Amino acid sequence: MRFEAVYHRASDNLCYSIDKDNLIVNIKTGYDVEKVFIYYGDPFDGGILGGEWKWKGKREEIPFKKRLKHQIWWTTTLKLKYKRCKYYFELTGNEETWFYFEDCFLSEKQMQLDGKMLQCFTFPWMNEADINKTPAWVNDMVWYQIFPERFCNGNPSINPKGVQPWHKGGVTNEEFYGGDLQGIINKLNYLKEIGITGIYLNPIFESPSAHKYDTTDYMKIDPNFGDENVFRKLVNKAHEKGIRIMLDGVFNHCGAKFGPWLDVLENGPSSKYYSWFMVNKWPFDDNNHDTKDGRFYSFAFNQKMPKLNTNNPEVIDYLIKVCEYWVKNYKIDGLRLDVANEISHKFCKKLREKMKSLNPDFYILGEIWHDSIPWLRGDEFDAIMNYSLTSSISDFWIDKSLTKDDFEYTINRCYTIYMQQNNDVLFNLLDSHDTERLISRVKDINVFYQQLAVLFTMPGSPCIFYGTEVALEGKYDPDCRRCMPWDEIKSGIYDDKINIMKALINLRKEQKLFRSRNFHFPNTIKNSRVIEYIKIDENGNRLEILLNCSNIDVLIENNGSVLFSNLYSNNRLLKKGVLIRKVDSI
Amino acid sequence: MRFEAVYHRASDNLCYSIDKDNLIVNIKTGYDVEKVFIYYGDPFDGGILGGEWKWKGKREEIPFKKRLKHQIWWTTTLKLKYKRCKYYFELTGNEETWFYFEDCFLSEKQMQLDGKMLQCFTFPWMNEADINKTPAWVNDMVWYQIFPERFCNGNPSINPKGVQPWHKGGVTNEEFYGGDLQGIINKLNYLKEIGITGIYLNPIFESPSAHKYDTTDYMKIDPNFGDENVFRKLVNKAHEKGIRIMLDGVFNHCGAKFGPWLDVLENGPSSKYYSWFMVNKWPFDDNNHDTKDGRFYSFAFNQKMPKLNTNNPEVIDYLIKVCEYWVKNYKIDGLRLDVANEISHKFCKKLREKMKSLNPDFYILGEIWHDSIPWLRGDEFDAIMNYSLTSSISDFWIDKSLTKDDFEYTINRCYTIYMQQNNDVLFNLLDSHDTERLISRVKDINVFYQQLAVLFTMPGSPCIFYGTEVALEGKYDPDCRRCMPWDEIKSGIYDDKINIMKALINLRKEQKLFRSRNFHFPNTIKNSRVIEYIKIDENGNRLEILLNCSNIDVLIENNGSVLFSNLYSNNRLLKKGVLIRKVDSI
Repeated sequence: MRFEAVYHRASDNLCYSIDKDNLIVNIKTGYDVEKVFIYYGDPFDGGILGGEWKWKGKREEIPFKKRLKHQIWWTTTLKLKYKRCKYYFELTGNEETWFYFEDCFLSEKQMQLDGKMLQCFTFPWMNEADINKTPAWVNDMVWYQIFPERFCNGNPSINPKGVQPWHKGGVTNEEFYGGDLQGIINKLNYLKEIGITGIYLNPIFESPSAHKYDTTDYMKIDPNFGDENVFRKLVNKAHEKGIRIMLDGVFNHCGAKFGPWLDVLENGPSSKYYSWFMVNKWPFDDNNHDTKDGRFYSFAFNQKMPKLNTNNPEVIDYLIKVCEYWVKNYKIDGLRLDVANEISHKFCKKLREKMKSLNPDFYILGEIWHDSIPWLRGDEFDAIMNYSLTSSISDFWIDKSLTKDDFEYTINRCYTIYMQQNNDVLFNLLDSHDTERLISRVKDINVFYQQLAVLFTMPGSPCIFYGTEVALEGKYDPDCRRCMPWDEIKSGIYDDKINIMKALINLRKEQKLFRSRNFHFPNTIKNSRVIEYIKIDENGNRLEILLNCSNIDVLIENNGSVLFSNLYSNNRLLKKGVLIRKVDSI
Repeated sequence: MRFEAVYHRASDNLCYSIDKDNLIVNIKTGYDVEKVFIYYGDPFDGGILGGEWKWKGKREEIPFKKRLKHQIWWTTTLKLKYKRCKYYFELTGNEETWFYFEDCFLSEKQMQLDGKMLQCFTFPWMNEADINKTPAWVNDMVWYQIFPERFCNGNPSINPKGVQPWHKGGVTNEEFYGGDLQGIINKLNYLKEIGITGIYLNPIFESPSAHKYDTTDYMKIDPNFGDENVFRKLVNKAHEKGIRIMLDGVFNHCGAKFGPWLDVLENGPSSKYYSWFMVNKWPFDDNNHDTKDGRFYSFAFNQKMPKLNTNNPEVIDYLIKVCEYWVKNYKIDGLRLDVANEISHKFCKKLREKMKSLNPDFYILGEIWHDSIPWLRGDEFDAIMNYSLTSSISDFWIDKSLTKDDFEYTINRCYTIYMQQNNDVLFNLLDSHDTERLISRVKDINVFYQQLAVLFTMPGSPCIFYGTEVALEGKYDPDCRRCMPWDEIKSGIYDDKINIMKALINLRKEQKLFRSRNFHFPNTIKNSRVIEYIKIDENGNRLEILLNCSNIDVLIENNGSVLFSNLYSNNRLLKKGVLIRKVDSI
């Protein structure tokens, strides 16, 4: 047996309460393992710990599995009468049987040795306070990300100085175009009509820049965007239309004009805010070059974005009060934390405690691009921006050596590294203000729709970046932050594209299977670059998703009813084509 | 390459800050991997995330490794100028080279694909508030566990009713012998002389039982043990002698006579304490049988030990106030939490925050018998009772099929599953009030000293159970809780045994290498049941530990100076013999 391939630990995504009665247990093994059984039961079934009695668990086969690239992922759900669980595994394959404990693999004979303490795995008690709970509404969302400065200018009287004429084409980060909150209010009907149910707003607090990731005042709407009244109106109008609002909190760092930072620049170590930042050398020459000299720590070495010291309880209190203010007074539904991974866990834990006490359904989303398990244990964030999924989808079109099996492995990986609760509310995206725009990355409108079809059929909640409904172009920041082309939209030239997006959004909302968490990868088409996956409901109804990423057209057997397609006709799925169909159980 | 054997995740024991500047990175691979390199650097070395630039890390070989049963454990420490770290690995073996990322293994060619997002591992920022800090003093401790009712009767005037005459031999849990706190005070000189530096006291709060794990009043010393004054005297006298005091907090459950529980029994759901417990059915017949009917949850189905609901903020507050009282007013040095694994993490986190605010050097120890990583991430406990080590040591003598390699693997496992900070302060023990006594388990005085030699040379802090210095016998609870044989000790018949214990304790205290964390397993003696390990200091001085667990005597090459031995003479290490010697670097 390939012992080295076997992995389990009674924590994180491998063993956790899904609710107060059910415990999910997952284990990885090599492909040589044919069957896995779990022996489980109450640790005290026979007496207290350390006694002479032998504990025996109940034996049950683990039925479900997913294929990962090098391992099999086995998964089961245990119902526990007394909330306690002690367990070990039996693994069989190649006519061998081994028992897997925390510390080792034992043969049947070794297990019987007199006096041997078996080091069973243990999930000692399913405490309700520790269950990882995420807001149920998020799975139903279709998000729309708005970069306010470039979305819509609704109030020219508050335009920034030197505003540029709204235009199609490239932009820089130094230019202003006058987008504002009134503009968003003006377009709520447009969003509602497309089917959007949640808006993720890039930062709107006062800041000198177009992107506003350099906050000057956390308690004030940027005057070029509007004021507290117009923001309140935005939230209320959106709520009336069934649209949720998520703000962007930039707490890793502030802007160069943030009051406490100015005080530090003036007074140095005698400033009462000195320990709010991470200054390593004083005095320093603030000569406007990057911070690679280490004079103070900043975001990405940017001297205009000094890091806030979120290790300092005063800073933690201050920022949590900021959040409390916006949640209590404006009823926002969620908060996305910028550069969430560099903020202290201490802050994230306290923030969650406060936010959930104000609103148990509040959604906390972290901007983290990498494996985020340390933040997704139930006491910090509900979800992260799922760039792992972005990358997994994107890579398949970039690396032509990858096969449909590789696609299966990478998607399965994305949905096995966290707990189910988090998977259901992940923030799935194909592009953002921090990436190339989707159409500019894939450079092909048909591949664009293939990838969107994947996005809309994955568990979690999909987000489209403003303009993606019209396949707006744009390379990396700042180019991805172009003005929304309202004149062209009005002219009708984008109607086809907008209708396709509406169709996808509508399917996502109407068809439960689009949102559901169980998917499988059958292998019916003999072409290694045709992706196939299905989603099945409890009645056996199936959603089939087919993507032809190969160099030839393929024949598809007729079946069910087509819900969405591109480059599909007469049972032929052309190169770059996509087909989503529903096959009802008979 | 055996890809399925490779494991890393940027969390827990695999990647963590050891202090504000140093990051430990560990990775497991199969035995086919010959070399491991890490590429690491600041994530923003070339620009902000998502840009077109390619990030390149600095390449460094990972030099150190430990052997596990099926995998190699590679370990390195990175110094990070800017506290941020992005990294990936290069693995070579069998003339293959692969690059290991969060999501996959890539060939050199795949890494260069245009547009590919490399999913590097990331430790985003070494926040000081999140560093796992443990009290430095604990590594220097030699603990002595006292079960007060059976240790020494110092004040017969407070004897329990029906007290039994102090005697050698078996005991039950229903008998009382009158041990008390004054008795412990009377024996402080004895403990000091043996060399003890810390006392772990089994529960001393009011309770009707001999073991006192069924608390009646958390704010009161049990009247048969003494009162607050005698407890204060005990702590003060111990401190004067350089002996620390750790109490036992039983917060998972209370006793049947705990006030709030009595109130619930009387008033049911209308009791203000109803939600302090976990009552599932009301009314219930408190007919004194176990709780397997689920009428309420209790410790180990014991109807006299109802579980406290540590999910309830009121209960959390109450119990933390209890701890605060004993820490603030009596200056205790540590707290052992009974059945710590069933208490909510929420409670454990809040407890730590409070205790460390009262005394940053306070030691929090959890009674957990299984893998405890969820409690040892730096925000709950400092250490756990290291029963994994107990079992790993014990098993080697029980399972004769195990070889010295297996011993190496199991010890290495014990010291790689947690962070170094926790390893240094683990509470290592060979027996306790919950196990057979060591001599009764091994049934051989020479094996007894072999295992003690291991205990005293392991990282962490060793604890001996009262009476182990005279090889007191006792099977499982209640038999392991016998009276301390003071008359016999006084008579001198145990002098040899006590002197051996003194020698071991003295070596532990005087020889830094006994306590240090680095050990290696050479293979100089061709006998698979002779354990050999060495510990080396920064100057090359070595401690050699040799244990003959085979059926034949073995010849040992003469070297260095003997610090401790049993069954060793004329360069012959007899069966069941042990030799600890120091070899100074030349």
